[in-house]
Amino acid sequence: MSVQTDSAKIPEPALRRLPWYLSYVKLLKSQGETIVSSTQIAKKIDVSASQIAKDLSYVDVNGKTRVGYDIDDLISVLETFLGFTQTHRAVLFGVGSLGAALLSDSGLEQYGLKIIAGFDVKSSIVNQKVHNIPVFHTNEFFEKNEKIKAEIGVLTVPPGYAQDVSDFMIRGGIKGIWNFTPFRVRVPEGVVLQNTSLYAHLAVMFNRLRP
Amino acid sequence: MSVQTDSAKIPEPALRRLPWYLSYVKLLKSQGETIVSSTQIAKKIDVSASQIAKDLSYVDVNGKTRVGYDIDDLISVLETFLGFTQTHRAVLFGVGSLGAALLSDSGLEQYGLKIIAGFDVKSSIVNQKVHNIPVFHTNEFFEKNEKIKAEIGVLTVPPGYAQDVSDFMIRGGIKGIWNFTPFRVRVPEGVVLQNTSLYAHLAVMFNRLRP
Repeated sequence: MSVQTDSAKIPEPALRRLPWYLSYVKLLKSQGETIVSSTQIAKKIDVSASQIAKDLSYVDVNGKTRVGYDIDDLISVLETFLGFTQTHRAVLFGVGSLGAALLSDSGLEQYGLKIIAGFDVKSSIVNQKVHNIPVFHTNEFFEKNEKIKAEIGVLTVPPGYAQDVSDFMIRGGIKGIWNFTPFRVRVPEGVVLQNTSLYAHLAVMFNRLRP
Repeated sequence: MSVQTDSAKIPEPALRRLPWYLSYVKLLKSQGETIVSSTQIAKKIDVSASQIAKDLSYVDVNGKTRVGYDIDDLISVLETFLGFTQTHRAVLFGVGSLGAALLSDSGLEQYGLKIIAGFDVKSSIVNQKVHNIPVFHTNEFFEKNEKIKAEIGVLTVPPGYAQDVSDFMIRGGIKGIWNFTPFRVRVPEGVVLQNTSLYAHLAVMFNRLRP
């Protein structure tokens, strides 16, 4: 498979849609289906069949005209393409309420993210384990990460520390920041940044629910 | 304040940016600042000063030309506008790994979301408490929600159940679905849907990190 080559080209919106297709196709498989067409996926998901076919053209899967995709093939190729079958080593900074919650979510590991260690500055939590994951003092990060070799850093510190901690993680070897804080951190070119703004989603929900 | 009237008009992208401004302005306050201009915010956040001024025109706060916004005023107005100062009652369906993690995140309550109860079908967890929040059998939802009166439903069930459980919640009185599953649920008109796709964010991160 030429995953490496193709993956460089796929636009982010297409990439973000692929997990939806994967999820639906896995549901079909559980219902005993073996073949699926983009038209069939389109009926269940608010994306046109031609867009789905285009999105799937970025991954190395061959649909047969007027027949569709083999479901087992499609699942396997999508899971590999999306990186869910590999293990990506991560650390987490800020073992507060949300940070500890994420450490306890074993679902992340099923999707390829393995958080090896947490880092914090609170003496009450440093050198403890949270859901079996060790928490170290932030000062130890550079040294620890020589062994851990994590490339991904989950950022769950208070917003006022977000930029400093992000910079610090990058100096320690982190190449991708998963930012859960509402603070817009900036990262140098070449570092990957993904923002998951739980509170922004809440704000939209609250606003739209108002009479 | 004419929050109700204005809020109907604010576009979602603007609404999603407001928490970033709030977060930055709170940081400035903690540093002893009392006045902030949109130019100053723009320098820290990848949004132009004119866009910031436009976004803030949807909320009822008066900036002074060539001076800026009073920071205390801006924080207070934004927190109110975003709904973070009110309590919004919610239930959560699917007390698995991610569901339990969200029940344990007290940060949500600080931002206005109070999860009153969890619902699940697993006998091992029904009638237990998770992080002090009671978990009931899904069958009890209609009856329980007459008392709970939750309007928001957090969806953390396995993807294959997402659509059915979403429909069920809506029949029980839920007006807003916060979907954490990778499944694209559909909701009738008038019901608010927010998708938080943790795994889509992971997929983008993994893909962009590839050499």
